[in-house]
Amino acid sequence: MSEALIQIGLVGCADIARKVSRAISLATNATVSAVGSRSLDKASAFAAANGIPPHAKLHGSYEAVLEDPGVDAVYMPLPTSLHLRWALLAAEKKKHLLLEKPVALNVKEFDEIVDACESNGVQLMDNTMWVHNPRTHAMADFLTDSNRFGKLKSVRTCFTFAADAYYLNNDIRVKPDLDALGSLGDQGWYCIRAILLAANYDLPNTVIASRHPVLNQQGVILDCGASLYWDDGGVATFHCSFLANLTMDITAIGTKGTLHVHDFVIPHQEKEASFSASTETSFNDLVTGWDIKPRIHTTNTDLPQEALLIREFARLVGEIKYKNSKPDKKWPLISRKTQIVVDAVKASIERGFEPIPIQD
Amino acid sequence: MSEALIQIGLVGCADIARKVSRAISLATNATVSAVGSRSLDKASAFAAANGIPPHAKLHGSYEAVLEDPGVDAVYMPLPTSLHLRWALLAAEKKKHLLLEKPVALNVKEFDEIVDACESNGVQLMDNTMWVHNPRTHAMADFLTDSNRFGKLKSVRTCFTFAADAYYLNNDIRVKPDLDALGSLGDQGWYCIRAILLAANYDLPNTVIASRHPVLNQQGVILDCGASLYWDDGGVATFHCSFLANLTMDITAIGTKGTLHVHDFVIPHQEKEASFSASTETSFNDLVTGWDIKPRIHTTNTDLPQEALLIREFARLVGEIKYKNSKPDKKWPLISRKTQIVVDAVKASIERGFEPIPIQD
Repeated sequence: MSEALIQIGLVGCADIARKVSRAISLATNATVSAVGSRSLDKASAFAAANGIPPHAKLHGSYEAVLEDPGVDAVYMPLPTSLHLRWALLAAEKKKHLLLEKPVALNVKEFDEIVDACESNGVQLMDNTMWVHNPRTHAMADFLTDSNRFGKLKSVRTCFTFAADAYYLNNDIRVKPDLDALGSLGDQGWYCIRAILLAANYDLPNTVIASRHPVLNQQGVILDCGASLYWDDGGVATFHCSFLANLTMDITAIGTKGTLHVHDFVIPHQEKEASFSASTETSFNDLVTGWDIKPRIHTTNTDLPQEALLIREFARLVGEIKYKNSKPDKKWPLISRKTQIVVDAVKASIERGFEPIPIQD
Repeated sequence: MSEALIQIGLVGCADIARKVSRAISLATNATVSAVGSRSLDKASAFAAANGIPPHAKLHGSYEAVLEDPGVDAVYMPLPTSLHLRWALLAAEKKKHLLLEKPVALNVKEFDEIVDACESNGVQLMDNTMWVHNPRTHAMADFLTDSNRFGKLKSVRTCFTFAADAYYLNNDIRVKPDLDALGSLGDQGWYCIRAILLAANYDLPNTVIASRHPVLNQQGVILDCGASLYWDDGGVATFHCSFLANLTMDITAIGTKGTLHVHDFVIPHQEKEASFSASTETSFNDLVTGWDIKPRIHTTNTDLPQEALLIREFARLVGEIKYKNSKPDKKWPLISRKTQIVVDAVKASIERGFEPIPIQD
């Protein structure tokens, strides 16, 4: 007999919850069992507009979702400044926790959240979707292959989009009391995560922010970048921005191979994603062309990456619920490393672009 | 009656002269009229192996090419440390000068060369081939288009290749007495030039070298990078290396558009070259895909880029020779800006990664 679906409650109905509730419905091991908002009307309107199953309970407060015995796990798309409070309460109520990124405002808060999850035996995962795309696994295989890629020499990532005037004045990501990390916490999170992927999750030794970050009048970052250095000579740079045309790249150059991807966060289309890779590429004899062109690798998937994330999250929750397993530590550890680098970039900006040593 | 072909003498028979002598034969307005090497045997062997026209004179010294009355212009593929001496002599002998890059060891030497060319009324051009590819013109059109690209926010370039052990021990580019600028002068020259292209040839205000450059035991740069900053907020980074797999990218992100090219220095093939461009790209409503994919722009050319360079050089020489025009100043000016940034990167490395202000 197959195990029952993992029952997921939504703590908040932010715009991104539309995509995630669809993902939950697509994943084969989970279902939306509750929707909570600050008012019952909002919860009800969200449920009606987003095909939430009729059996799902509607709640007029976040607390009510956390108290709901029909909820195994919660998805929490709240502004970052609210994460600490609500994540701690969720853990206390033994609800497994899928938390929007950035996980926390800083690593101190992060550690409070992860400690609460660990001591309550609940799974923590952040909602970084692209790492669950099968393309990412194929990229990781390439990047860790000593024959095809070799040793990482440099990696460049970027995630930019041109926010409109409404966004730049009203979105939670430009408000110091909501998502105070701005573009760094939103887009930079992905860029740093991609750099860590290319570095096989080794933290850099030093982080230096790029000059000329753009902050709004409230001091929230709208555009920034940084360089990351490893003692073995690897160098990474990234650029994130609300002020530049939509671009999302990873370019990783190893001693033996090169990888390019141009839609790493959100693939151009749902069911298919590509990257280009080359190994020991060279010129022809007269140096008028290349001996071989980089090869395009395409992966196909029945489920979009956000549904694959839900499937992985619900699988881990199921392991705990039905098989008495311990919560997985891999995902929180990767999240924590991302948060450490976010903190370092912010510190470097605040200290006039000083090099910030990374201490794990 | 059409004007006669511009008579080009080769001052040196370095490997790159094979490609350039072929380019001269392909260009429709020039011919190789002399080949000079440090011995007549070498000149003779080069001519035989590379289809040099039978009418070309063979010389056993560089001086003899510069004295040859049948030579209008010379191509000089000598190590950088020899440029000053031989370029000055060429100018004095009224030979127009196509000089390998990097033009000089530093901008002081550069200015001596350009002054000598100006005072002798001869054309100076460096042998940066890719800027003569029609693709580069199409890229420049895109990058300067306020509707399609907008204002430059960030540009990343790289040119790396994995030199073999023989190269790393013997090539002139790793020898302090020959090409002392190493990878920075060779590959970095192109990266910087591409950055300047994206910045519409505005010099940055500040240059900061990346940490962890790799120098050989003689102090020649094998791998380095830098960040360049403009006061208006633009940021550029580049990475050049003899120690990483062949990669050559430009990624330019503007407020409205994005450009990617992955073979900017040497196109994958001779007759066709592509770049990808997007304008005001966005997501679909659920943020599960892109509204439009970046578009591939392909340009075709009958002549490879190195032949187009020769045609442009010979055209300018012809303007002077037959129409009494003044030497063109555009190409030397762009070369000089490239040299200025090369100098700043080197200075930043030497001064422990200090920011170097750029003073034109």
